[in-house]
Amino acid sequence: MSSHLLSVDSLSRDYVDHLLRVASRMEPIASRRKVTRVLEGAVLGNLFFEASTRTRISFNAAFCRLGGSVCDTTGFTFSSMAKGESLYDTSRVVSGYVDAIVMRHPEQGSVAQFAEATHVPVINGGDGPGEHPSQALLDLYTIDKEFTRLGKSLAGAHLLLTGDLKYGRTVHSLIKLLSLYAPLRISLVSPPGLEMPSALIDLVESRGHRVEQRDSLLGDFGDLDVVYATRIQKERFTDEMSESFAGVSQEFTVNRAFLDRHCTPTTMVMHPLPRDSRPGANDLSVDLNGDSRLAIFRQTDNGIPLRMAIFATLLEVDELIERDLRDVRWFVPKTIGVDDAPYQGS
Amino acid sequence: MSSHLLSVDSLSRDYVDHLLRVASRMEPIASRRKVTRVLEGAVLGNLFFEASTRTRISFNAAFCRLGGSVCDTTGFTFSSMAKGESLYDTSRVVSGYVDAIVMRHPEQGSVAQFAEATHVPVINGGDGPGEHPSQALLDLYTIDKEFTRLGKSLAGAHLLLTGDLKYGRTVHSLIKLLSLYAPLRISLVSPPGLEMPSALIDLVESRGHRVEQRDSLLGDFGDLDVVYATRIQKERFTDEMSESFAGVSQEFTVNRAFLDRHCTPTTMVMHPLPRDSRPGANDLSVDLNGDSRLAIFRQTDNGIPLRMAIFATLLEVDELIERDLRDVRWFVPKTIGVDDAPYQGS
Amino acid sequence: MSSHLLSVDSLSRDYVDHLLRVASRMEPIASRRKVTRVLEGAVLGNLFFEASTRTRISFNAAFCRLGGSVCDTTGFTFSSMAKGESLYDTSRVVSGYVDAIVMRHPEQGSVAQFAEATHVPVINGGDGPGEHPSQALLDLYTIDKEFTRLGKSLAGAHLLLTGDLKYGRTVHSLIKLLSLYAPLRISLVSPPGLEMPSALIDLVESRGHRVEQRDSLLGDFGDLDVVYATRIQKERFTDEMSESFAGVSQEFTVNRAFLDRHCTPTTMVMHPLPRDSRPGANDLSVDLNGDSRLAIFRQTDNGIPLRMAIFATLLEVDELIERDLRDVRWFVPKTIGVDDAPYQGS
Repeated sequence: MSSHLLSVDSLSRDYVDHLLRVASRMEPIASRRKVTRVLEGAVLGNLFFEASTRTRISFNAAFCRLGGSVCDTTGFTFSSMAKGESLYDTSRVVSGYVDAIVMRHPEQGSVAQFAEATHVPVINGGDGPGEHPSQALLDLYTIDKEFTRLGKSLAGAHLLLTGDLKYGRTVHSLIKLLSLYAPLRISLVSPPGLEMPSALIDLVESRGHRVEQRDSLLGDFGDLDVVYATRIQKERFTDEMSESFAGVSQEFTVNRAFLDRHCTPTTMVMHPLPRDSRPGANDLSVDLNGDSRLAIFRQTDNGIPLRMAIFATLLEVDELIERDLRDVRWFVPKTIGVDDAPYQGS
Repeated sequence: MSSHLLSVDSLSRDYVDHLLRVASRMEPIASRRKVTRVLEGAVLGNLFFEASTRTRISFNAAFCRLGGSVCDTTGFTFSSMAKGESLYDTSRVVSGYVDAIVMRHPEQGSVAQFAEATHVPVINGGDGPGEHPSQALLDLYTIDKEFTRLGKSLAGAHLLLTGDLKYGRTVHSLIKLLSLYAPLRISLVSPPGLEMPSALIDLVESRGHRVEQRDSLLGDFGDLDVVYATRIQKERFTDEMSESFAGVSQEFTVNRAFLDRHCTPTTMVMHPLPRDSRPGANDLSVDLNGDSRLAIFRQTDNGIPLRMAIFATLLEVDELIERDLRDVRWFVPKTIGVDDAPYQGS
Repeated sequence: MSSHLLSVDSLSRDYVDHLLRVASRMEPIASRRKVTRVLEGAVLGNLFFEASTRTRISFNAAFCRLGGSVCDTTGFTFSSMAKGESLYDTSRVVSGYVDAIVMRHPEQGSVAQFAEATHVPVINGGDGPGEHPSQALLDLYTIDKEFTRLGKSLAGAHLLLTGDLKYGRTVHSLIKLLSLYAPLRISLVSPPGLEMPSALIDLVESRGHRVEQRDSLLGDFGDLDVVYATRIQKERFTDEMSESFAGVSQEFTVNRAFLDRHCTPTTMVMHPLPRDSRPGANDLSVDLNGDSRLAIFRQTDNGIPLRMAIFATLLEVDELIERDLRDVRWFVPKTIGVDDAPYQGS
């Protein structure tokens, strides 16, 4: 049976290190300075049972840049499943058509179930409240890349995670990955009722990290290396929580004023996106647009090389990339915008 | 004007033989041991006016593996047709954009009508109760490949077709194709009211085959070489038929007990898929999962090389494949699962 | 920031000339006599927020024929925009995934707004009542190509534009492009209330062209070189207009009788398509089907090389095409149908 990428839980430090290294090798292709044809003849089944246009495009583009082709599927279900076909049959059939599968589905566990019947690698592109491992990996890759560029070390770094830490699958996966690395100082800030699950905190602390919980962004944090913000969805609230949150919502907003108080010129401000830019949305503020510390688009940009690395590793062509890289005949590297710190290039 | 693949009716024995031979040549590419770029620069219009995710993916992947690119379209109609555009205009316009068209449409005859205005080959991917020639061809290819592997000959083989033989377009097309081959013994088993049309039986008998009809899977059939099951949809029934079927539905179920009674270790159990796995569905039983005689996934797997052969033949590159085959730089051939007999390879 | 193709307004005569020249170089690829891989490794984001199957396929196929890959998106909105994401964020994120974007959207100005945040070229594939520049460019390319083939000169040519000249964005863009060229005689024929906006007529006249307006296709026009018809949609009418139009609708129909009166053997009959072929549709008549002067399918065919030229120019590989052209290993050039005058080839 094939190996899959279903969860960050099963990932070792060595495997993650390898992925980040391969992702770094992919940069010249992602920024179209080089071309590879290493996946020529290979086909990706990009199965989105739940809408997520950008994640779909990101996986699609990553596979294409390796020289492969993509079959996209969107919509709640396969037409054959509506006719009573089992997930087992659907999965086994599709795995005969393609060489790898990315699947997103609203139900937790469905992707893992799908993977059981396939003969090809399956990547979890998000299964509802479950996992979305490539998001956490690209976040980690972004942090690692930026720290390397700045000559900073992860050891002893101070990271702040804020927003909905109870339901946000992104922060759960990210903190698990981070806990594989050198001792960190992690500050967790959330409104009462949306705290990080204690089992997860226990896990992180058991790995030697220092975790601190607070219920406001006011007060002193010292210098922060990374601020990772997520949206607080009022829909999550009980009536009681709504009332108590009403007066203090400003205490959970990452905006320019917050950066002025707690951040250095090299602090990274991150977010899993999309962010809700509507007024009163309790999300990362748009008043940071244009600030070079805002790393949110570097995160999404990094999704391409990181996802290329996932494909290359699962399909076992990661070692072949080196000798398959060729100079392109067209030399218009992608420009990086004013809101972005320059890529490190390679 | 271009040649098309609209129906099995027009196919000669020679043409079918050629297709199967070309499909066999495609196996190393389908199992990614080789790569070809013979359709580089070519574009397929994969037009699905009716949902059929897997058939769409299968055609898409087959075209990509030949080095081509695919434009997918799903949904009931072209937006321009909603504005009053004739099928003629739509068809002619699209044929200027692409090099080949696969079309699936709920209305019988619509694909043939579409083909009239095009300058490129059109493949019928299923037109409602009409035809779905690539399905019958991949079924035949699967039988031929398996017989060859087992050293068996089609001459004198005993095939049983069961289920809804009246409305099932798949069995109609398949029996027509089979009738081009050496004398066969064909048993047809269906509930009263869902028998194979007599005109079709006459045709098959006129070509020298021995056809026998029954109304139950109980009783003695002797050793069977192939069992081809299809679903019995109760929606097809009149009230009277429903009543008489209620007591005997078990007599039409292909399951392990049936195999124990009538089958040998080399009997193939086939089905056009999808099969309805819901309880009481009157379809091929899931208790056969894992039995190596269950050929249903070998059928779908074979859809790729067979559809590659269709494209290569219609676009007249079937002779070019040989010299265009190249070794791949990545050597991870697809694994075949425990429910599958080993591929013959090539 | 990248350059875009958002409107014909900003196009200079030199730029248009260059585009047409590049399009002409693309012909051997579009008719699959040659293959290029000049955009290998590049990915197009083909974003259709409004259904337009054929325009989507045309852009898709054009990009593929240059060796690139395509991510298609259809549907009213990005899933992330439904969650409150700003157009800015969506646009910036997608521009990090792909190398070029085609966007169609029902709201005027939305494509230009989208383009502001991207780092890659954006092509307007139609923004509601706004612009659809590639349509006007392919119309101009068709006229230029046909005139060249016939040894005719645009200088002094007589063009008739008829139908809904008030709301038809196609004729607005086309007349702007035409006005960049040698002095023309332009006849405009529309029902009262659907006349070409006077500002546009002023612009064209200020560039030295002779414009004449009429309210019927009856009467004498002299010999016409080009007849460009568009549909008159009754939905545009006020009650009063409906009444007055009822008796005279035949006076606005381009059909065989009209051609017999005013056209020569080399007059071109054009239409932006789709045309409404339903009875009483007030659109270009189907009684012209099969007449070699009907250029409507040559227009759509020409959409491929013209759109290839747009991509090549915006991505700055237009000069590379020449040395990147390679003979194909498969030599089945596309056939041109009986309703088409022969291509000029190259």
